[in-house]
Amino acid sequence: MTFPLETYTARLDAVAALLADRGLDAAVLTPGPDLRFLLASAIDTHERFSALVITPTSRRIIVPAVDAGALRDGIPGQAGVEVVAWTDGQDPHGLALSGLAGSGRIAVSGEMTADHLLTLQSRGVTTVNATAVLRDVFMVKDAAETVELRRAGAAIDEVHRQVPSLLRPGRTEREVAADLETLILAGHVSVDFIIVGSGPHGADPHHDVSDRVLGHGDIVVIDIGGTLDSGYHSDCTRTYVVGDPRPDQAEAYRVLQVAQQAGLDAARPGITAGELDGIVRDIITEAGYGQFYTHRTGHGIGLSCHEEPFIIAGNDLSLVEGMTFSIEPGIYVPGDWGARIEDIVVLTASGCEPLNGTTHDLVQVAEMTEARS
Amino acid sequence: MTFPLETYTARLDAVAALLADRGLDAAVLTPGPDLRFLLASAIDTHERFSALVITPTSRRIIVPAVDAGALRDGIPGQAGVEVVAWTDGQDPHGLALSGLAGSGRIAVSGEMTADHLLTLQSRGVTTVNATAVLRDVFMVKDAAETVELRRAGAAIDEVHRQVPSLLRPGRTEREVAADLETLILAGHVSVDFIIVGSGPHGADPHHDVSDRVLGHGDIVVIDIGGTLDSGYHSDCTRTYVVGDPRPDQAEAYRVLQVAQQAGLDAARPGITAGELDGIVRDIITEAGYGQFYTHRTGHGIGLSCHEEPFIIAGNDLSLVEGMTFSIEPGIYVPGDWGARIEDIVVLTASGCEPLNGTTHDLVQVAEMTEARS
Repeated sequence: MTFPLETYTARLDAVAALLADRGLDAAVLTPGPDLRFLLASAIDTHERFSALVITPTSRRIIVPAVDAGALRDGIPGQAGVEVVAWTDGQDPHGLALSGLAGSGRIAVSGEMTADHLLTLQSRGVTTVNATAVLRDVFMVKDAAETVELRRAGAAIDEVHRQVPSLLRPGRTEREVAADLETLILAGHVSVDFIIVGSGPHGADPHHDVSDRVLGHGDIVVIDIGGTLDSGYHSDCTRTYVVGDPRPDQAEAYRVLQVAQQAGLDAARPGITAGELDGIVRDIITEAGYGQFYTHRTGHGIGLSCHEEPFIIAGNDLSLVEGMTFSIEPGIYVPGDWGARIEDIVVLTASGCEPLNGTTHDLVQVAEMTEARS
Repeated sequence: MTFPLETYTARLDAVAALLADRGLDAAVLTPGPDLRFLLASAIDTHERFSALVITPTSRRIIVPAVDAGALRDGIPGQAGVEVVAWTDGQDPHGLALSGLAGSGRIAVSGEMTADHLLTLQSRGVTTVNATAVLRDVFMVKDAAETVELRRAGAAIDEVHRQVPSLLRPGRTEREVAADLETLILAGHVSVDFIIVGSGPHGADPHHDVSDRVLGHGDIVVIDIGGTLDSGYHSDCTRTYVVGDPRPDQAEAYRVLQVAQQAGLDAARPGITAGELDGIVRDIITEAGYGQFYTHRTGHGIGLSCHEEPFIIAGNDLSLVEGMTFSIEPGIYVPGDWGARIEDIVVLTASGCEPLNGTTHDLVQVAEMTEARS
């Protein structure tokens, strides 16, 4: 699925203008979110070199001949991007740097691999990270992109609504994850990640799944995300409890919920990313849980799962209407339990619109009949 | 799944010895095949920096605190690799370059992203591609790795055996691919790629799938691969025909089959990768189809789908017992049709063992009842 041609030509024009503005000779951009954003191209990155080369006055894409077919008929061809095919034995890096090698100052995709970057650098060009340029184009989503992210949010919400029926004592995290995979694929074209962190595993924010068996009283962190056909991502965390939480867990969760809501209330154009992180973090710290909140408050999301803006202490970036990012504080007590609440939001003119709509409460799952006797 | 601890300590020792030998101060290796090979670690790469740092006298892995849990208990901890956890706000690149920044000469993973490589370079280190070092350790597979690649070959063969029942006139490439996905997942933990190139799409070696409907007389290239739980990959291509091929297609296919068999017969220790490519290519060229064979003859395979050795003109690398790679010539007539035959082989003491065992013939699919009336 693609947006209208004008969307892509406007983005290419914006990047070309930024290059001139920043004193750069070219951007050399590799497959991944950058090419999806600028050309609606989902060609794979692989060890053969493919790159969109934008200069202030030209646009061409260097691709293996094996990949050239689809590009000429698609958005690249329609947008006037010259498709330059190369075959094994030719020098694709040299083709990309035609007119630039020796003294050019070029911006390269942050996702370009070292294999290719080291080869480009060996030709004498000076390289900088293109994300510092591209973020000025991709961080602010247009209406069509917001529609996609809203669709993604609705799709992952639908999965969370079905989680309580999956969390039965006696089942393993892995069994729950297998069900989640099926549910995610019902509304996405692929699964990005599935975290089922039960009991002490909830204290590891990046735990994925294990053979741990769910038991009475377990707090369970479920963090899931997938990709739509359009390339836009979902990402949402809710926390569940099998039966009743302990009083100390209920109290800590209440603090977490207040902190996350404060983030939603504070997110608006004009605040900096660092300030937003601080507003959320201060509430957790002042309640005495600061040592248990070990990660940043959020990350941008769009054609990448994690992209700028990063909502982290020290980031002076001023937030702008149309930016989309997560607000996802957590409390992690090592060896015991953890909890996290995560919504994706889009900044509006005066505040933010959350793209996830299920309850923020600690969801109590009835201790029904055990799955296994 | 992991190999015995000694496998990993021997690999780490081999890399450390190579560093000293090549005058390098350290290897800084990021998640992906490198860490899977050296530490049995499948941690994800993401925008937070994770790196195994090997110097001639020390081994440590820098990871986000969120990922540290599993590493201490796993192979890294058992192999004496120090796990250094960092949290948001710390400087992980600085931690990785401790004692190296300013003047170090380091080898970096070929798959490291530019985001991280540019940051490391900004600290003053000189960087080279670690693949030039690591390939001396990973290109030659040991017995346990060969067992995994043999398993992978058997798993993808089982899929190819079922392909004839899927190729019915009236079905689309996409419908066939959906069935292939299910079949691949029956023997692998994930699908790497699915190419269903029917009719003129067969002439594009990297075509994936489309809504093109299979018709009478179509030649169909099926190139599929997946990943085992151990991380090792399968990759196998066979070519099918719905009904009967045209005489010119049958003749060209016969040449292709002879060329691919010549590659299997010639693959042995001592031949160079470039010589092997030439033996296959010359047969196709001498029969008048040289212009239609537009890619190299093969690529190494292991924990990466595509890795060294690359079987390509000009590669003077002398092949060695235990190397595993594809032999996959093709003939591609633009706008008309294409064919490819691909086997993975492991070099033995005196020749090679193919890891794929289904017929190399152009497989004729009976024109049964059409799938749709």
